[in-house]
Amino acid sequence: MTTAAGTRVPQEERTRLMRARLLEATVDCLVEHGFAGTSTTLVSERAGVSRGAQLHHFPTKNDLVVAAVEHLTAKRGEELAAAAARLPAGTRRTRAVLDMLADHFTGPVFSAALELWVAARTDETLLAAVAPLEQRVGRETHRLTVELLGADESARGTRELVQATLDLVRGLGLANTITDDARRRGRILDRWADVLDEHLGKELR
Amino acid sequence: MTTAAGTRVPQEERTRLMRARLLEATVDCLVEHGFAGTSTTLVSERAGVSRGAQLHHFPTKNDLVVAAVEHLTAKRGEELAAAAARLPAGTRRTRAVLDMLADHFTGPVFSAALELWVAARTDETLLAAVAPLEQRVGRETHRLTVELLGADESARGTRELVQATLDLVRGLGLANTITDDARRRGRILDRWADVLDEHLGKELR
Repeated sequence: MTTAAGTRVPQEERTRLMRARLLEATVDCLVEHGFAGTSTTLVSERAGVSRGAQLHHFPTKNDLVVAAVEHLTAKRGEELAAAAARLPAGTRRTRAVLDMLADHFTGPVFSAALELWVAARTDETLLAAVAPLEQRVGRETHRLTVELLGADESARGTRELVQATLDLVRGLGLANTITDDARRRGRILDRWADVLDEHLGKELR
Repeated sequence: MTTAAGTRVPQEERTRLMRARLLEATVDCLVEHGFAGTSTTLVSERAGVSRGAQLHHFPTKNDLVVAAVEHLTAKRGEELAAAAARLPAGTRRTRAVLDMLADHFTGPVFSAALELWVAARTDETLLAAVAPLEQRVGRETHRLTVELLGADESARGTRELVQATLDLVRGLGLANTITDDARRRGRILDRWADVLDEHLGKELR
């Protein structure tokens, strides 16, 4: 079983890539077919990975899905960080931050996460995997939003306004799964940007 | 098939009650087992209705679930109207309205609705049943909230703030499915009540 250092690295790299392909395919399947419609067969087909190799890495749907929770968490963090880096500076910064968050919460990674959240509601094993990572994502997204808005959390009520902003976009994301809601969402975010600017500005003074 | 008027009414009533029992059991199953875990067998057992009678009224899971969408819509309207009738008057009215909405969006009927929304995301037949009723519930909840808050929708930005309030409680409801979130939610709603009082009050002046 011992291999020379020179060949072990490529093998590890191949394993890492195959796992990543399987997890990426799991996320795609969750988006397209939902949690119930996602099967290990469908995932291995989509990933272009043999059934044997898939079963070696993830013997059950549960193994696959629990690993996909972690993969998706990392993916959400990367997506938000990349979008944050593209944000313009200037006066409509707040509105641009809200747009960025709304894009994230109405995109495919939100749909995949939503499938996992709702499945976890009635599946204890999945919940045990989802809950701690969700808390981590929540904290990181909060910290990023505070930073992007230039909010001062030591000011009374600021922390709660930032939290409310994230719950608002989560609610908008959920609404958007039923009907395309872009126009209504745009008007709500315009209004909320005004409220945030006023309150955060006032409290920073 | 013609029956005397005197016996037709009880028969119709029995049918109505049996359908209601089946739909109520469907909602309970959605809350406890999720959409994927809800089967016609489980529903007929829980309703105490024979398999034959259940299949007569709702031949497939899809028939049952589509009918449950309508039943749940009515149930949500009744729950909100009853809670609205119990609301206290007075200065903390806004906070009480938010509590009422948050209770609704973190309760079992929200969980059942969430299961249907998410299943409808990847199921066109279900989506066709869910989308128009969801729009109706949305409009009715909006109207009720405007009335309870005493908001003047002719004032600029008021409509959007009320909409944001409903999206916020929807987002809080979704967060609460993963972790019990009551303390955080309480602080956010305190803050939101202040924002609403200030903005709605200002614009009514």
